[in-house]
Amino acid sequence: MSRDLAAFFDANAARVRDELFDFLRIPSVSARSEHDADTRRAAAWLQGALETVGLRAETIDTPGHPIVLGERREAGAGKPTLLIYGHYDVQPAEPLELWDSPAFEPTIRDGNVYARGSVDDKGQLFLHVKALEAHLKVRGTLPVNVIVLAEGEEEVGSVNLEAFIEANRERLACDAVVISDSAMFAKGIPSILSSLRGMAYFQIDVQGPAGDLHSGSYGGAVVNPAMALARILATMHDETGKVAIPGFYDDVRPFPDAVRAQMRGLPFDEEHFRAETGAPALGGETGYTVLERLWTRPTCEVNGLLSGYTGEGAKTVLPAKAMAKVSCRLVPDQDPKRIEALMQAHVARVAPAGVTVTATHLHGGRPWRADLGGPLFDAAKVALAEVFGREPVVTGEGGSIPVVGDFERVLGAPVLLVGFGLPGENAHAPNEWMSLENYDKGMRAMARLYDVYGGSR
Amino acid sequence: MSRDLAAFFDANAARVRDELFDFLRIPSVSARSEHDADTRRAAAWLQGALETVGLRAETIDTPGHPIVLGERREAGAGKPTLLIYGHYDVQPAEPLELWDSPAFEPTIRDGNVYARGSVDDKGQLFLHVKALEAHLKVRGTLPVNVIVLAEGEEEVGSVNLEAFIEANRERLACDAVVISDSAMFAKGIPSILSSLRGMAYFQIDVQGPAGDLHSGSYGGAVVNPAMALARILATMHDETGKVAIPGFYDDVRPFPDAVRAQMRGLPFDEEHFRAETGAPALGGETGYTVLERLWTRPTCEVNGLLSGYTGEGAKTVLPAKAMAKVSCRLVPDQDPKRIEALMQAHVARVAPAGVTVTATHLHGGRPWRADLGGPLFDAAKVALAEVFGREPVVTGEGGSIPVVGDFERVLGAPVLLVGFGLPGENAHAPNEWMSLENYDKGMRAMARLYDVYGGSR
Repeated sequence: MSRDLAAFFDANAARVRDELFDFLRIPSVSARSEHDADTRRAAAWLQGALETVGLRAETIDTPGHPIVLGERREAGAGKPTLLIYGHYDVQPAEPLELWDSPAFEPTIRDGNVYARGSVDDKGQLFLHVKALEAHLKVRGTLPVNVIVLAEGEEEVGSVNLEAFIEANRERLACDAVVISDSAMFAKGIPSILSSLRGMAYFQIDVQGPAGDLHSGSYGGAVVNPAMALARILATMHDETGKVAIPGFYDDVRPFPDAVRAQMRGLPFDEEHFRAETGAPALGGETGYTVLERLWTRPTCEVNGLLSGYTGEGAKTVLPAKAMAKVSCRLVPDQDPKRIEALMQAHVARVAPAGVTVTATHLHGGRPWRADLGGPLFDAAKVALAEVFGREPVVTGEGGSIPVVGDFERVLGAPVLLVGFGLPGENAHAPNEWMSLENYDKGMRAMARLYDVYGGSR
Repeated sequence: MSRDLAAFFDANAARVRDELFDFLRIPSVSARSEHDADTRRAAAWLQGALETVGLRAETIDTPGHPIVLGERREAGAGKPTLLIYGHYDVQPAEPLELWDSPAFEPTIRDGNVYARGSVDDKGQLFLHVKALEAHLKVRGTLPVNVIVLAEGEEEVGSVNLEAFIEANRERLACDAVVISDSAMFAKGIPSILSSLRGMAYFQIDVQGPAGDLHSGSYGGAVVNPAMALARILATMHDETGKVAIPGFYDDVRPFPDAVRAQMRGLPFDEEHFRAETGAPALGGETGYTVLERLWTRPTCEVNGLLSGYTGEGAKTVLPAKAMAKVSCRLVPDQDPKRIEALMQAHVARVAPAGVTVTATHLHGGRPWRADLGGPLFDAAKVALAEVFGREPVVTGEGGSIPVVGDFERVLGAPVLLVGFGLPGENAHAPNEWMSLENYDKGMRAMARLYDVYGGSR
C-alpha cells in the first residue's frame, strides 16, 4: 500500500487500538431492554467518532435502536460512492461465568483482544472508520464518496433497517456496498465471502396444565409439556440429518459445481475443526463435506430449552409449560416467510393433544449469493493481496447478515463481504476475541481498497 | 370421639394453628444447600415442640439433614407401640413469582392455609404432635407407646433414612407405623391409602462442543446437544403412551381385580379432574382409566429442561450442553436399581455420535402395596368414621413415600397411610395449601386412633 498511509497506521497503532477499546466497553446488547440506554450510548459514541474523523454524522431514531449515518461526498463527481455497513450492537454476554475476563473490559491475551463485540462487529466496523481517518489526516480528502451506515439491531434481526433503506434510498444511493462482519478462511488467508445463509428464528411454547403439578399425583394422566416439546423437536430431522419439515427443501437452489469444486479445494482439516469445537465427533447431513454443510445447506437448530425445575437436586414437578428457541439457517432461494408458514404447519401437525403449542417467528433474513466480479470486487482482490501478501480466497459462510440481500434489492448495488475475523473467535459465545494483527491489517487493506476503487474510474 | 379430647381441641384451636404457622415459616428446603441452616433450625424447632408436649426428644445427625426422634413409652407393657413417621423438610418454593402470598408466610384464604410445606408434610406431621398433646394435657398419659420419627430428607429421596432404621432397628421396634403424608380422595371422604408408586429420578446430561458456538458458523456440522437430548427423550414412550425403555414393564405385577373394581367404583369425575389441572385434555397410556394411570401404572416424566439461551429475544447459539431431569414413577414390583440399569442402557443405546450422554441416578424408592387389615387398620376405620361421619374409602396414590417399604422390611411392622390433604392442594407447586378443617379433624381422628388402637389389646 502507499507509504503515506502505512506511516500513519504505524504511528497511530496504539491510539486506534485504545479508541476501539473505549467502543467495546459500552455494553450495547440490543436483545436486552435493560441495556437500551447503553445501546443508545454506543450510537452516540460512534457518531462522535465519525465526526472527529471528518464525516458529517447523525443518529437517526427508529422504532427500535437508532441508526448512525456518516457521510462525506467530496471526492468528485466522477468518483464512485461506497456505502460501508456495520453494526454497533452486540450479542448478550451470558453465561458471564464462562468468560476468562469481563465481557465488557477489553483484555489482550496472545495478540488478541477479548471482549463481547470485538470481532462481531465493533472491531470490523471501526477499522473502516480508522481507514477513513488515515486518508483524511494524511491527505485531507477521500478517494471515494463515502456513506457509513451502522445499525444497532443486527443481533436482533435488523428489524428496522430494511424500512430505513427503503425510505432513504436516494440518500443511500451508491455504486457498491462493503461489509466487514465475517471471518477469513484461516490466519493469513484473506477472504471474500460469496454466500451467506439466511435465518428464520422461532420460539416454540408448549402449555399444558395451568400450573406446575406434582409429578406423582398427576403424572401418567396429564400430558407432560416438556416431553411433548421433546417429541415435537425430534420430528424436525430424519435419520440422515435432513430437516424433516415437509416442503423445507422445495426452494433450495444447488450451488454451481464450480463453486463446490473451489470449496473442496480449500485447505480445510475436518479433524482440526472438530478438535477446535471440542465435540467428540462431527455430525450433520449425510452426503456433504463439513464446509458444504456449513456454507451450502440449510439447518434447523435448537438454541435454547427451558422447562420446569432446573436447579440443584431433584424436584418432582410436572411442568406447566416448556419452551424452545429454534432457528433455521436458510440457503438460496429459501424465503423466511415461507419457512415460517412451513414450521407453523408442521408444529400444528405433530403437536399432541393435551397441550397447546405455538411457534412464534421472532425474526428472519433472506439467504444471499454473490456475483463474483465488478470494480469493487476487483479492487478488494488487489488491496488484500498487497496487505496480506497473498491472493484472497473465495469462501462461503454459515452465518447470516440478513440485510445483504436488502441492500442489493433496494439500492441496486453489489455487496462485497470482506471480513477480518478468524475461525474460533467465539462470536456469540463467551470469550469472543479479535486478532489485533487483523485489526491492523484490516485498516490498511480497507484504506488501500478505497484508493484502488477510487482510481477505477 | 371422647368428650375430654374434643373439648381440648375446641379450646386450643387457635393456639395449635399458630404453632403450625411458626413451623411453616422456617424455609427447610432440603434440596438447596443455601437452606441447610434453615433445615437444621426446623429440626431443632420440632424437637422443642415434642419436648413441650411431653416426649423425650433428640436431634440426631446423619450425613445429610438430621433426624428428629421423640419417644414416650409409659403406656404399659401390654400396650402396642406405634411409630409415627413424617418429614419436616419441604420442596423448593420456586418459581416464587407464581405464589399469591409468600411461600414461607402462612396465609389463610377460604379456610385453607397457604404455605410451602403446609400439607407436605409439616401440617400432617404436626397434627400428630398436637393429638399426642391432647392426650397428655387432658389425661397425663398416652394409650399407646409412641415413637415419633421425623426426617429432613424426604424431598431429596430419604437418602439416609434407610440406614438409620437399619442401625436403630431395636430402638425403633414397634407394632405398627402410621404416616400422614397423603390426600383424602375428596373433601369429606376420609381415606386410607393402599398403594404408593416408587421412584427412580435421573439427571440426563448431554455434552457436545466444549463451549457454546455460533449457530451460523457451526450449525449443520456440529451435533446440537439440545436437539440430541430431545431425540433421546422422544424415544422414552411409544405411540400408545407406554414407556418404551426395553424391560421397563418386566417386573410390573398387575393389581388384583378386586382392587381395580373398587377403584372404578369411586366417585371420580375425569372432566372435573381435567378442569382442575387446566390442561386442554388429559392423556396417558391407552387402556386404563385416569385413576388406574395414576395409581397402578408406572411413568416416565420430564421434570426439567435447560439448554442454551433462554432469556428474552433471540440468540443464535449452538449450545455446548443440554440437561433434563427425568423421573420414573414405579409400581410393584419394579425395583429402582433395576430401572436405573435399564435407563442407563437405553440412553447409551439411543445417544447419537457427536455428544457425550450420561444418565445419573439422583435417588430412588421402592413402590408399595398394603395388606388391608390388622389392628391399626381396623382402628383407623373406626376413628375416621367417628370424626368424619362416614366410612373411609381405600385409595391408591400416584406419589411416592420411598420409606414405607423400608419400614415394613426392616421393622417387620405394617404401615398405615392415612392422610388429610385434598386434591388440588398444589404440593410441589406454587400456592401449596392445607385445609384447616382437615388439620383440625386430622388431629381429632388421630387422637381417637391412639385410643382405639391402645384398647385393641
